[in-house]
Parts: sequence; C-alpha cells; structure tokens
Amino acid sequence: MIAASGMSGIITLITDYGLRDPFVGIVTGQILARFRDARVVSLTHEVTPFQPGEAGFWLSRSWREFPTGTVHVAVVDPGVGTPRDILVVGAAGHLFLAPDNGLLDRVRHSVRVEHCHRLDVARLAAFEIHPRSNTFHGRDLFAPVAAELAAGRALPADMGPASLLGALQQPERQPGRGQVVVIDRYGNLISDLEADEVAAVVATHVRLAGRDLPLRRTYGDAGAGEALALVNSFGLVEVAVNGGSAARTLGVGRGEILELVAGAVDRS
Amino acid sequence: MIAASGMSGIITLITDYGLRDPFVGIVTGQILARFRDARVVSLTHEVTPFQPGEAGFWLSRSWREFPTGTVHVAVVDPGVGTPRDILVVGAAGHLFLAPDNGLLDRVRHSVRVEHCHRLDVARLAAFEIHPRSNTFHGRDLFAPVAAELAAGRALPADMGPASLLGALQQPERQPGRGQVVVIDRYGNLISDLEADEVAAVVATHVRLAGRDLPLRRTYGDAGAGEALALVNSFGLVEVAVNGGSAARTLGVGRGEILELVAGAVDRS
Amino acid sequence: MIAASGMSGIITLITDYGLRDPFVGIVTGQILARFRDARVVSLTHEVTPFQPGEAGFWLSRSWREFPTGTVHVAVVDPGVGTPRDILVVGAAGHLFLAPDNGLLDRVRHSVRVEHCHRLDVARLAAFEIHPRSNTFHGRDLFAPVAAELAAGRALPADMGPASLLGALQQPERQPGRGQVVVIDRYGNLISDLEADEVAAVVATHVRLAGRDLPLRRTYGDAGAGEALALVNSFGLVEVAVNGGSAARTLGVGRGEILELVAGAVDRS
Repeated sequence: MIAASGMSGIITLITDYGLRDPFVGIVTGQILARFRDARVVSLTHEVTPFQPGEAGFWLSRSWREFPTGTVHVAVVDPGVGTPRDILVVGAAGHLFLAPDNGLLDRVRHSVRVEHCHRLDVARLAAFEIHPRSNTFHGRDLFAPVAAELAAGRALPADMGPASLLGALQQPERQPGRGQVVVIDRYGNLISDLEADEVAAVVATHVRLAGRDLPLRRTYGDAGAGEALALVNSFGLVEVAVNGGSAARTLGVGRGEILELVAGAVDRS
Repeated sequence: MIAASGMSGIITLITDYGLRDPFVGIVTGQILARFRDARVVSLTHEVTPFQPGEAGFWLSRSWREFPTGTVHVAVVDPGVGTPRDILVVGAAGHLFLAPDNGLLDRVRHSVRVEHCHRLDVARLAAFEIHPRSNTFHGRDLFAPVAAELAAGRALPADMGPASLLGALQQPERQPGRGQVVVIDRYGNLISDLEADEVAAVVATHVRLAGRDLPLRRTYGDAGAGEALALVNSFGLVEVAVNGGSAARTLGVGRGEILELVAGAVDRS
Repeated sequence: MIAASGMSGIITLITDYGLRDPFVGIVTGQILARFRDARVVSLTHEVTPFQPGEAGFWLSRSWREFPTGTVHVAVVDPGVGTPRDILVVGAAGHLFLAPDNGLLDRVRHSVRVEHCHRLDVARLAAFEIHPRSNTFHGRDLFAPVAAELAAGRALPADMGPASLLGALQQPERQPGRGQVVVIDRYGNLISDLEADEVAAVVATHVRLAGRDLPLRRTYGDAGAGEALALVNSFGLVEVAVNGGSAARTLGVGRGEILELVAGAVDRS
C-alpha cells in the first residue's frame, strides 16, 4: 500500500479554489480514482485568486515538512486554457507540479532544481489523461498526473520533454530591508527578511511604519496587546502583537517596508 | 483494505454544516469508528444553510468524478427530526444518501435511478444504528449507514424497503433561456444552460443584464478585466471576467436571466 | 496497517489556526512523515484565536464520537514558547494532548482522568523531537508526539514525567440557570444547561432576553421563522429559529443568561 519507487504516496495541494465550491473535492476524486491509497493533504485553498506568488511563498515554506517522494501540486492559474506550460520540477527528492507562471520562483530560491519537464498532451494520452475542459486543468491534468507520479507508475520524463527553466529573477533589495509579504490568520505581518539577515546586522529592532519594535523570542515576551518583532517558525522576520492582531493594531498591510535596526531605543 | 463487493471505500460529503463547528469532524469520526479504511472526501460544507437545491446542483456536477462504488452523502436537511424520509438511491454504480426533500432532483436529471430505498429505523437497529438525537442525523444515521454501505457490509435493501421516487419536476423554461444558479468563489456566474443548447442555436453571445457577451473558449481569450461567456468545465454556460469577478463587475446575482444569442454584435 | 497496541491510528485536531494559511497542512505533513497510515481528522480550526475554552467546549462534546485509542490534539496556545507545560492526558481509552492553560477543563468535567504526563524536552530528544521554533509547537512538538503515540511506538510515560492535574474549578452557577457558550454556524445559541437539569425542574420553557421560548423536540416543531428551545444533539439546551438564525432574530450573543422555566405561557 506504500507507493513504489521511493514515492511517499502523499500529494499536497495549494490552490486559490476556496472551500465554498466543490473544486477541491473533485480534484481529490480524480486523484483517488487513479490512486486509491494516495494521501491528499491541503496546504491551503485560500490563496488570493490569481496570485501565484502567494502560493509560491507558502509552498516554499511548507514542502520540507513532508517526506521525500511527495508530490506538491500548486494551481493558481489565471492562464488556464491558454498556451502556458505546466511544469514538473524535481528537487531534493520532491516533485512540484505547477503552471509556468512564476509560481515556483520562491521554491527555486530555496532549493536547487534537479530536473524539469513540461507536460505534453500527446504523451499524457498514453495515460488516458486528456484536457476535458479549457478552464479546470486542476481536475483534468494536475490531478491525474499527480496521481500517476505519486503512485510511482510514471516518471516526469514520461509526461513531457525535459526543459530548462528560465533564469530566476533575484529580488532586488537592500540587505536588511524587506517588506510584508503575507498577513496570517492572527494578523501577524510576515516579511521576506531572513533569519541570517538579522544575525548579519546584529539587529535588535525592526522599523515598521515609523515604529521601532524590539526583536524578541516569542509572542509572550511582550506584554499583552504589545507589538514585537521576532524570527518566526519559518525563519522569517515577523511583526506581531501578543494576544492580538498586528495588522489591525498597527494599521499595516501587504507591501509595507520593514527595516532591521541595530541598537534602537524602543518606540513601540 | 479495499472494500469488498465493488465498493470503492470512498464516501463523499456535501452539507451546509460549515467548517467553524466540529460537525464534519464528528460525522467523520462516526464513519471511521465503523470503517477505519473509509476515504472521506468533502465536496463542500458551505452550502447555503437550508438550501437543498444548491447541494443537489453541485452534487450533480461532481459525482461522476469519483470511481463507481462511491457513496455520496448529502445532508442539507431543514426537516431533520420531523417524519421526512432518508433515501438511498442507486445509479450508475454509485450510491446517494440524502433526505427526501428534493435535494437529489438535479442528480436524477443527470442519470437514470436504478433503485431507491427509504431508511427504516427498525432495520437499522440490526446494525446498531439508532437516532440518538432529533437534530443531528448526519452523525446518528447518515454517517453509520454510509460506513456500512461503503464497507460492503450492507446493501441498500438491508436498510429499508424499496420505494418509488416521486415524479421528477422538469424545470419549465424556454430553450436557450436559463438563469444564474450558482456564483462560484471567483465571482463566475454559472447558469443552467447546457452545452448542447449552445450548439443547437449556434450561439455566439450570451445576453445578460442588457449586455451581449461573446462566447469564448477560456478566460484568457478576453482582455484583462473584460467580461466573456464560455461553456465551463461542468458543461454549463458561465459568465466570467478575465482576472476578476463577474458578479462584482456586472452587479449580477443568483436568479438573473441569461439568453443565448446567435450573431449579435459585441456590446460588452 | 492498523496501529499496534490498542491505538486506533486516528488523530483529531482542534486549533485556532484557521484554513487560510498552511499551518494545518504542515502539522499533517509532520504527522505523516512519522506515521504514514495515521488518519488525521479536523474537528475545527476556526476556534476564536487565543480562546482555549472554546476549543475545550467542542472537544468535550466531540471526543466520544471517535473510537478508543484515538489521540486528540488541541492547540490553542497563546503561551507558546513561554514555560507553560504541554499535557498528555489519558481518559476512557483516549489520549488528549494540549497546552496546560485550562483548555482541557471541560473535557475533565465529562470524564475521569486516568493519567497525566507533562512533555519533557529531554525525553523527546530520544524520539528526535525538538522544539525547532518558539512559536509553532503544533508543528514541532504536538504533531510528532501525536504521531508516535498514535502509531503505538511510544507511551505517554516515555514522553515526560507523570504529574497531577490542578484542582478542577467547578463553574459556580445556580441550577437551571446557564449561559450561551457557543453560537454555531446556523446561529443556534448553545448553552451550558444540561439535559438532566431540564428533567430535574420539568422545564417547559427557556427564558432568554425577556422571552419565554417553548421547549420542543426538533426545529420543525416550531413554525417557520419561529424561535424555540430544545435539548440538542450534544445534550445541551439550545435556542434556535426554525429555518433561520436565532442569534440574528433574537439579537443575542455569547454570555447571555438563560433560565429554565416550568409552566410558563409562551411569550415567544
């Protein structure tokens, strides 16, 4: 019942499908129809519609928590039905399946890509996989391809030609200066500043929206209702309010600039 | 570990329970307590409370994506605890379990019913299934019945007497004239106009709220932010905005009338 | 594939993580990385952030619906990273894993605790379990500990020293007088008044916000849109509106006082 050939039999899903319509259930049905023992795990389906970068951000911070041999399916795909490619990327023993729209850029920043293939509809036909629609490739292509890969019945090379990925845009920014990339359920402001940047400048504070917030270990190190900064569980600088919402308390949204500061005086 | 007797061991759930309270988890617990290897797949739990027709719409568009031998459990049940029946319907190798309140009407439009039974509390007692409450039959009846059926340990005939279903109301409407029945997560307006109606009138446009929207292949065939119509992945006419929300852009809600038009000039 | 040693292999999760961010998926990944055949069932992830009591309420009403040998993981943990303990509690053949912040109080009201251990980081190291962060112990501690317990590879005593639980605060209140503790998805007002209190005073009505609402069997025993009271499927007094939302219709929120009344005249 464990899948063959080094696969874990686990398939993760990250989409902008939401949970109000049956899209995720249908994708799961198409996976199980081919691979009854697949373990389908949702990362989230509440990615902001049409924002591949947001899916890529969370995927880059999640995939290492799964065993090797896992297939990660990411479908935020505004170009569905147009001639954009679908990629199968291999890295560190994991497989990633996503439209070729930049979604995987942040994953590529975090790991060396070992191989990449582009799905070829002609080759998929050998697996009785057909694009039945122009608008729901999650059901028609991603699900059955993921099932065949996760079951160990197909290799990426069976699904399409090998291909090089485009050069990776390195985000241009000054060291120690980042921005809020995601606001989580608690209202925590998660930035793209990495733990090693904090170490590099021996930062003691984070400057955000005119305030210098002290860098602490955990939420409870600030008083109730007080703002603080910390290196969060994803290795990123985060601004939070102990027992509250930093987004609401500080009135800060996505894109806001943060700066690491050494030796500032608290002005929180 | 695969269930006996042609069953897939898969149980789908569609309810109006939401995900804020533990109702879905409890139903799943009662399924697993009887059938540890069941695969429970949620279609959606965000059906508008007390709207069986909405559950029936999505179920009719979803069930074929699962393997034969799947049990589909639909619980939108404003009459829970009153003397309404619970039906077990067989069609095309699938089983459907739902209250007798019209929920299954749209499924019946899409497939020929082969057999129908009505749950009989006296017969259920033989399986140690009892209505413990008057208000949560998802937990008390639907879950254990689905588990016994999906495990292949019971046949519908073991659960209650065979029964005829009432005559099916055919929706009365002019051909080529339908309405918006569901608005999905992206704000797409999904109608009850079928693909074959589009072919029959060689439609080029869809008239909605005073506009004639061109019928295209996929979202990306319209400019960014532009409205279009298409036959969607469920074989239904849908009005969408490329990269946006048609519901918001056009200010249109459920029930709005759509008409297929041949040879109109774009006035989108 | 069924877990050894009397365990069901089922792990339930109740958290305040929400479903917008990938926290639940990551926790599931860490469980499956250790125990591929675990069945992970979500009770809810929409507990109000930082409200352990709300998680405890639903957990106390849900755990008995699962087979013995199930591990129930509850993470509403405002003290994460501070020196609060994590408890492993055994009762009636189930295991409960939760921070020591009162979350398990309502569970303790419903069952006799048989044993309790406090996680000890030094002992966890033997299982290669380490607190990798100060802010995401669901991923770092709860998930791997639950996996080892559910797989039957570890006993609570392997994870930390036995410990007594603090004396349980009995909620002080007059018999027959309770309050609204939860408002469910339908707007039903669920109280902490138990079925046996209704029997004790031979109550016919429930007084709430100046109205006397008749106690009925089920929702459909009131007219459409009418308010009623009933003993719900969790054995608790609930105020509902047939086909509507009691919270909205009556303008009542959490904490509102309810009183059982014998022989009142309907003033609904």
